[in-house]
Amino acid sequence: MGYNIIPLDNLIDKFAKIPGIGRKTAQRMAFHVLNLSMEDAIEFSNAILDSKKLIKKCKTCQNIADVDQCSICSSNSRDGTIICVVQGPKDLLAFERTGEYNGLYHVLNGLISPMDGISPDDLTIKELLARLSDDIVNEVIMATSPTIEGEATSMYISKLIKPLSIKVTRLAYGIPVGGNLEYADDLTLNRALQGRCEI
Amino acid sequence: MGYNIIPLDNLIDKFAKIPGIGRKTAQRMAFHVLNLSMEDAIEFSNAILDSKKLIKKCKTCQNIADVDQCSICSSNSRDGTIICVVQGPKDLLAFERTGEYNGLYHVLNGLISPMDGISPDDLTIKELLARLSDDIVNEVIMATSPTIEGEATSMYISKLIKPLSIKVTRLAYGIPVGGNLEYADDLTLNRALQGRCEI
Repeated sequence: MGYNIIPLDNLIDKFAKIPGIGRKTAQRMAFHVLNLSMEDAIEFSNAILDSKKLIKKCKTCQNIADVDQCSICSSNSRDGTIICVVQGPKDLLAFERTGEYNGLYHVLNGLISPMDGISPDDLTIKELLARLSDDIVNEVIMATSPTIEGEATSMYISKLIKPLSIKVTRLAYGIPVGGNLEYADDLTLNRALQGRCEI
Repeated sequence: MGYNIIPLDNLIDKFAKIPGIGRKTAQRMAFHVLNLSMEDAIEFSNAILDSKKLIKKCKTCQNIADVDQCSICSSNSRDGTIICVVQGPKDLLAFERTGEYNGLYHVLNGLISPMDGISPDDLTIKELLARLSDDIVNEVIMATSPTIEGEATSMYISKLIKPLSIKVTRLAYGIPVGGNLEYADDLTLNRALQGRCEI
C-alpha cells in the first residue's frame, strides 16, 4: 500500500528498484529526501545525472573513469608488464586497497554466464587481447571470483592468452587470514591442503 | 577510500548521507545508477526534484500531500468527531492499513525532545488546537509512540486539550498479538496486567 501521494510513491518506487533495497528502506530514503533542503535535493538530483553524463570507460583498462584514460593506466610508476584481470570496478578497488599490487588492471565488466545471457562478446575480452599484442605484458593474473562463472571466464580467457606465450596465473586458494578453521568449508580446506607450503 | 572518480564519489556521498545507509550499500546504489539507462537516470533524478517541489502539507491535518487538502480530510465518509494525533506520516499509514479507523488524523511532524532541540513550537500543536475550536471534535486519540518523547508529547498536548472539555484517550498498552509472553519485557507485562479485562 502506497501513500497515494504520486510524487512520493514515485520516488519510493525508484529507490525500491535498487537491488537489495526493500520497500521499508526505500520509504525511509524517500522521507530523507523530503526532509532535505531544496538546495540539497537539487544537488542529489544532479549527482545522479552527473554520474551518468560524466563517467565513461577508461580506453585502456575499461574501468570506469571521468577522463579518457584512468590514473592507473596513465601512471608512470605502475608496472606495465603485468595485468590483473577483474570482473568489475569494485574488485579493482579491493586490490588497490591492499597497496601491494603495482601492475595494471583490466576490467571485464561481467563474467561469462549463459544463464544470464552474458556471452564472451559482452565482456571486454577483445580489448584485453589487443593490449597483449605489443609484447610488453608478460603476465596476466586472472583474478575473477572463485565461483562457477568466475572460473569459467578465467578458463576461457586463459585459453585465448596461452598461444601468445604470456604467463597466465590465478590467485591462491586457501583459508582466509584470521578465519577460523572450524568454519572453513570442505572445498576451501581441501584447496588449502593442496596448496600447502613449507614454513 | 573512494574511487577517485569525482562524479561517482559524489553520488556515493549523497546516498551514504541517508540514515541507515552505510558506505557499502551507498556504493552498490551508485553502481545501480551507473547501470541505468540515461532515460531512467533522468526519471530518477526528476523523482527527487518532484518530491520536493510537488509535496506540501495538507492544510488541515498537516500530513504530506500533493494537494491542498488530503484525501482523508476532504472525504465525506470519515468521522469528523474524532482525531487521531500521530508523530508522522508513517504512523498515519500504519493506522490506515488496519482499515479499522474511520476518523481523522493530525500529524505532529515530530515529538517534543529538548535533547534534539525540538520544542512544542516546532510541532503542529497550534494547528491541532485550531481544529478543536469549532465544537465538532469530541475525542482526541493521542497515538504517539510509547517512548519517553512520545509520552511527554502526549501529556503536554492532553493538558492543553482537557480545558476544552474534549475527551483525550491513548492507545491500549499490552502484549502484542502473536507475541511470546516469554520475550515480553517487564514493563509491557506489567501494563498488560494492569489493563486486563474479563473474557
